Amino acid sequence: MAAIDRRGLFRATAALTTGLAASAEAHAADPPRQPPPPITHIIARYAATAPVAQVPDAVRHQATRTLLNWVGCAVGGSRQPAPTHAVAALRPFSGPKQASLFGRTERLDALHAALVNGISSHVLDFDDTHLKTIIHPAGPVASALTAFAEYRPVSGEEFMNALVIGCEIECRIGNAVYPEHYAMGWHITGTTGVFGAAAAIGRLLHLDEQRMAWALGLAASQPVGLKVQFGTDTKSFHPGRAAQNGMLSALLSEVGYTASAVAIEGVDGWGQALSTRHDWSQITDGLGSRYELALNTYKPFACGIVAHPAIDAAIQLRDAHALHPADIRSVALRVNPLVLNLMGKMAPQTGLEGKFSITHATAVALVTGRAGAPAFTDAAVRDPAVVAARGRIAVATDAAIQKDQADLTVTLLDGRRLHRFIRHAVGSQDNPMTDAQLADKFDGLADGILPPDRARHLMQLCQDAWTLPDAGAIGRAGAAVVA
Amino acid sequence: MAAIDRRGLFRATAALTTGLAASAEAHAADPPRQPPPPITHIIARYAATAPVAQVPDAVRHQATRTLLNWVGCAVGGSRQPAPTHAVAALRPFSGPKQASLFGRTERLDALHAALVNGISSHVLDFDDTHLKTIIHPAGPVASALTAFAEYRPVSGEEFMNALVIGCEIECRIGNAVYPEHYAMGWHITGTTGVFGAAAAIGRLLHLDEQRMAWALGLAASQPVGLKVQFGTDTKSFHPGRAAQNGMLSALLSEVGYTASAVAIEGVDGWGQALSTRHDWSQITDGLGSRYELALNTYKPFACGIVAHPAIDAAIQLRDAHALHPADIRSVALRVNPLVLNLMGKMAPQTGLEGKFSITHATAVALVTGRAGAPAFTDAAVRDPAVVAARGRIAVATDAAIQKDQADLTVTLLDGRRLHRFIRHAVGSQDNPMTDAQLADKFDGLADGILPPDRARHLMQLCQDAWTLPDAGAIGRAGAAVVA
Repeated sequence: MAAIDRRGLFRATAALTTGLAASAEAHAADPPRQPPPPITHIIARYAATAPVAQVPDAVRHQATRTLLNWVGCAVGGSRQPAPTHAVAALRPFSGPKQASLFGRTERLDALHAALVNGISSHVLDFDDTHLKTIIHPAGPVASALTAFAEYRPVSGEEFMNALVIGCEIECRIGNAVYPEHYAMGWHITGTTGVFGAAAAIGRLLHLDEQRMAWALGLAASQPVGLKVQFGTDTKSFHPGRAAQNGMLSALLSEVGYTASAVAIEGVDGWGQALSTRHDWSQITDGLGSRYELALNTYKPFACGIVAHPAIDAAIQLRDAHALHPADIRSVALRVNPLVLNLMGKMAPQTGLEGKFSITHATAVALVTGRAGAPAFTDAAVRDPAVVAARGRIAVATDAAIQKDQADLTVTLLDGRRLHRFIRHAVGSQDNPMTDAQLADKFDGLADGILPPDRARHLMQLCQDAWTLPDAGAIGRAGAAVVA
Repeated sequence: MAAIDRRGLFRATAALTTGLAASAEAHAADPPRQPPPPITHIIARYAATAPVAQVPDAVRHQATRTLLNWVGCAVGGSRQPAPTHAVAALRPFSGPKQASLFGRTERLDALHAALVNGISSHVLDFDDTHLKTIIHPAGPVASALTAFAEYRPVSGEEFMNALVIGCEIECRIGNAVYPEHYAMGWHITGTTGVFGAAAAIGRLLHLDEQRMAWALGLAASQPVGLKVQFGTDTKSFHPGRAAQNGMLSALLSEVGYTASAVAIEGVDGWGQALSTRHDWSQITDGLGSRYELALNTYKPFACGIVAHPAIDAAIQLRDAHALHPADIRSVALRVNPLVLNLMGKMAPQTGLEGKFSITHATAVALVTGRAGAPAFTDAAVRDPAVVAARGRIAVATDAAIQKDQADLTVTLLDGRRLHRFIRHAVGSQDNPMTDAQLADKFDGLADGILPPDRARHLMQLCQDAWTLPDAGAIGRAGAAVVA
């Protein structure tokens, strides 16, 4: 016992020493400015006071696109095993039926609804992407907002301003710690998303700066998500739980539940524990005037974004030459080196694995001319024609090829060689999806889940979100009609 | 836009490179054995299959003491602002009234009850301590078990076996990453506690090894707690939320919600993200035969444990010499260097600050002869006699004095010098609280919150826990009677 106790003493002392060392090191990684600025309160002030009038038209429009894309994804993923399992497990613990579930008939309390809608919206890997950080901004924020707006009525303008504020905060915190934070193993959407959700719901609750800071502090103690979960149901759990944790944080702080005033930047705080890099200026510079949300992008294809240039090339070649899979002798694909690292599953066995397979993504696009959600099901991955085409694809990497580019050459049995180079893939920063393409994507996602008239009504509500008298209408319209 | 996109590309590549570097570094900190053992499944197998019969009598007895001490703390803290605020904020979202709240009249769904009871049990900083890691083992595990046992009936033997398994897992994971994990800023009770709660509830659900591994995987994505929160309501939120997250993880995995099979030890997993040290042998060696729970300790005083030797000395001197505060000229206290680092608040203004003040702890013990919860209220900290005594205390540190030791000399106005050296403070590993002292502590905590007969009944249920036909009786008996 004495030996154990001494070891206890040794370790406690070691912890202390290492602790000081660790914080010193963490701050060594900071920009020269010492001590760090009061980041938690700077963010809290912005979240509590940023006037809707200051949001530029371009950002208002991007927020509308972000909402429409996210709602489509939430509807499209709503019947997948992950949200279905979550509803089955948690329904016995749900409170009053305060909020709807997109694409489903059940209603749950607002906290549980945020979790389930967040899972549905990410399970297809089809949601929006902030390319600088690989954060999927809408998931945690919109999941919390749509559920809460059904519980406590709010105007569309307040709702959308909260969406802008929430996305801005999660992306800026992400910029401050990316890429080191991501490299440590964290799934950045869930670790920064909890702040976005807390700020967005805190804004709807009209929290003052002090309570908003407590909400951000409570959020700091609840990061969600590890990259080791990619390929399992838990990946889509991350944005959902981040939404739920953020809402919980705002609700607790509203009644006076206290947290650290320096939870993000302080010694033994979020920044120190979750990243070796902390460039706080990424959070403060241009806050309220320059918008990260303006850089949001939307996936035309339901898989890892680095495969999109190859899919774009494959669909263009197929359509231009009326390609038939049986005519293909070989396919030569040149891509950015990152592609094989992130999408290197050469012989996927399931739809989920297919989302991380450059060969499946290219093959299914060549064979079917499409790469939406149906192209990444177990059936699609096992389709003999797709499997055959996959076997004919040779992938080479080339550092000269950018992440949004691809070079595809198809050699036919008759000897013809068809070639397409994609300079900026559709959906990339420099070739964004048009509003019409986003509407088509929404239709495709809602098809078979919501009746056409209901889907059209839901799309209209998203497009009119800034002027809705009651933003709760979005969640209510997204629910599936009881059979 | 193009510039931003290029920055995006650069960062993504950097993330990847750093990622590989980071994991390499993380594993460099591992013991030579490469690759790491399948820790997640090793723990899952133990949690799913460890027979109750293998628990030694000494561990069974320690588990009973752990439960009794924890229940007393949960009752004693139940009227504090933190749990009161949590109930006010979350009651509108609670599901069916499945579980009781210790010391309170409200009933909530089992998930919310686990959160609130966890907050109540930690808010007084009076709960149990695993000295090797400074983990408070009971909080996350017992909060989840007592609430869940009211929802789904379970025998006392199954309940206590799950308590042993849960505490064992969180302490062993803590041993594998302590002290580096703690030094990074993590509040280790909340980051390891979620595994203990998931395993304990998973055991009650009879999860097989596969589903238990998914539960641990879901838990890995939900660590709770940062040390920056110490001194705020969010510190006590940590064990409560860890309990709730663990229960949620087990409930989801029960219905088939999947997670990584290597969530703890894998690349981009919990170990890599949350600690630079991973001594996996601390988890596997003697698992099921040597018990960390056997090393659990209980606080006789309601403040930071390193102040306990000084308090012990002060109470002994006061009682032995019938000391009166007015007779004291000066007090010379010599303590381990760690004490001033952890309890260095020399002029505390609130009860919470008093819990981290060596001078207040010593002064209140000299003046009142007690150091329970009432000694660390705002009123006690501002008591003129205590403030006066505080001002006469000079604290010196001495590395030769161990963490469970203190050297106290009181000089009286009449010139007499009274001295006491504490070799092993009461409650330390080598001078543990007796069962009788634990019973007295329980009475003191329940006093004024539960009627005496009800408190006696609750204590009896805890002492008989291993043989109860229905462990749900503990939570039900802990509820306050409606006024």
